[in-house]
Amino acid sequence: MSSNEENWKQILSQVKHTFEEQVPFNKLLGLKIDRLDLECVKVRIEKDDHHVGNFVHGILHGGVIAAVLDVTGGLTAFVSLLQKMGDASVQEKMERLAKFGTIDLRVDYLRPGKGKHFTAEGTILRTGKKIAVTRMELHNDTGHMIAVGTGTYLAV
Amino acid sequence: MSSNEENWKQILSQVKHTFEEQVPFNKLLGLKIDRLDLECVKVRIEKDDHHVGNFVHGILHGGVIAAVLDVTGGLTAFVSLLQKMGDASVQEKMERLAKFGTIDLRVDYLRPGKGKHFTAEGTILRTGKKIAVTRMELHNDTGHMIAVGTGTYLAV
Amino acid sequence: MSSNEENWKQILSQVKHTFEEQVPFNKLLGLKIDRLDLECVKVRIEKDDHHVGNFVHGILHGGVIAAVLDVTGGLTAFVSLLQKMGDASVQEKMERLAKFGTIDLRVDYLRPGKGKHFTAEGTILRTGKKIAVTRMELHNDTGHMIAVGTGTYLAV
Amino acid sequence: MSSNEENWKQILSQVKHTFEEQVPFNKLLGLKIDRLDLECVKVRIEKDDHHVGNFVHGILHGGVIAAVLDVTGGLTAFVSLLQKMGDASVQEKMERLAKFGTIDLRVDYLRPGKGKHFTAEGTILRTGKKIAVTRMELHNDTGHMIAVGTGTYLAV
Repeated sequence: MSSNEENWKQILSQVKHTFEEQVPFNKLLGLKIDRLDLECVKVRIEKDDHHVGNFVHGILHGGVIAAVLDVTGGLTAFVSLLQKMGDASVQEKMERLAKFGTIDLRVDYLRPGKGKHFTAEGTILRTGKKIAVTRMELHNDTGHMIAVGTGTYLAV
Repeated sequence: MSSNEENWKQILSQVKHTFEEQVPFNKLLGLKIDRLDLECVKVRIEKDDHHVGNFVHGILHGGVIAAVLDVTGGLTAFVSLLQKMGDASVQEKMERLAKFGTIDLRVDYLRPGKGKHFTAEGTILRTGKKIAVTRMELHNDTGHMIAVGTGTYLAV
Repeated sequence: MSSNEENWKQILSQVKHTFEEQVPFNKLLGLKIDRLDLECVKVRIEKDDHHVGNFVHGILHGGVIAAVLDVTGGLTAFVSLLQKMGDASVQEKMERLAKFGTIDLRVDYLRPGKGKHFTAEGTILRTGKKIAVTRMELHNDTGHMIAVGTGTYLAV
Repeated sequence: MSSNEENWKQILSQVKHTFEEQVPFNKLLGLKIDRLDLECVKVRIEKDDHHVGNFVHGILHGGVIAAVLDVTGGLTAFVSLLQKMGDASVQEKMERLAKFGTIDLRVDYLRPGKGKHFTAEGTILRTGKKIAVTRMELHNDTGHMIAVGTGTYLAV
């Protein structure tokens, strides 16, 4: 493994650890990163009784869907912006994490959030020096698309 | 109090109870309705350690902000659509609640979510027979505007 | 050709004629429908000096991009909602055209609008009885993605 | 008049001239700046037969509305970002104009665009070093709100 690959492996592993273990609301939702590399980001959530919005039908709350899409787009944007930094050190790269944030988010709710677990996938639409724009899709465990989103992110 | 006013008081009290006590994710977030009448909707959230996104700065997670704005817009739209139903009975009106949902949502994150508690307020932009469009604003306890949103809601 | 196929051919031909010849602003922009069937909608615009936003670089004005994406999403939604009407007559189907409109639109500008001509393509995300949600993409003549959009449409 | 005020007057006059005379698509639409100062931006459009979308009802095309809201938000953002530049020279300030653009735009269509002329007004929601977020509202000549929008703008 080249030193550059080693570098990336270390960064992505640190991002995953931060995301899953150090962000309290991600922990509350039980978000897990299923895949995180330079090509693709996937975030998974198991439905739990606390995530329900409509108590009659037991479907996922719209706020949970928005949260999952936002963090998936954020991770996708973050990894893409890191790639643009080229040869910067791991430390320099990680310092940008603290100043990274969502500028705006659009969520389209397509179908009721029925299912036991859900996976959100992020795709890059644009990566500038400081701005990245992403599309996100949330599918349930039977492959139905539940919601999509578009997010704009800033790394100051 | 006229029978119509009594009717409204009963409906809004039922909506408030459902929102605060019967929607699991609203309970998890600790959302409270501060005001709910035909002129104005206000939803309040106390920050708690589990709502944090950025663990270094202790600020509100973007997903919490999106969730609060979505439910505030939803309540605003719902009350407005109910008004359009005119003389329908309480039961008829409440039956629409089960089939009510968000079509789409835009959230703009303006400032870091610093503060102990936050209040979201909703305003109606358009109310049709089935569609309502709302604007929402989230302020912290020192009066700073943290985020705004726009939502489109459907009552089938 | 079955009577149903004949029926569709007639409707789509009428939609194309209305779009290109009877909508004044579409004529001003010179919009042409490249493809319009039950699988796909493509709208084409030739750049002309009047469409320019940034006079230094000769790129497409953001308002032109928004307009093209809006009408592409609208056509996509309209065809999809027509399909949901099943066996209704051509006349009944066309009467819905007059009451059809955009509820909301999001546009993401990804790259400067350089090129001689541009093609927008629409995809359906959701079709209900009255509401349809679409995604749109605009590419230039060298295959670069210039902008994307998401639109919500209503047929009352 | 202080030299700083003189400076601003010169910049705003130059922005107005560029907007109205040098942007071809603004000229095609006949856009005029009604007000442009550090507190408020207003853009006006006279309806003309070419701006019509629905030929039966003679209402404004959704693409025209999107275009007017986009440029109004853009002007609002641009003036606000200029203010953040403090003591920079007129030339330095104007050089940023060439690299200024819309990142994303949301438009909500509230009522049919009936009227003889329309005015769009912009408000700042957030101004950073490079990013500004604005809200826009479009009213017709009888004071009805026709559409609203939210835009995110970048000055590289």
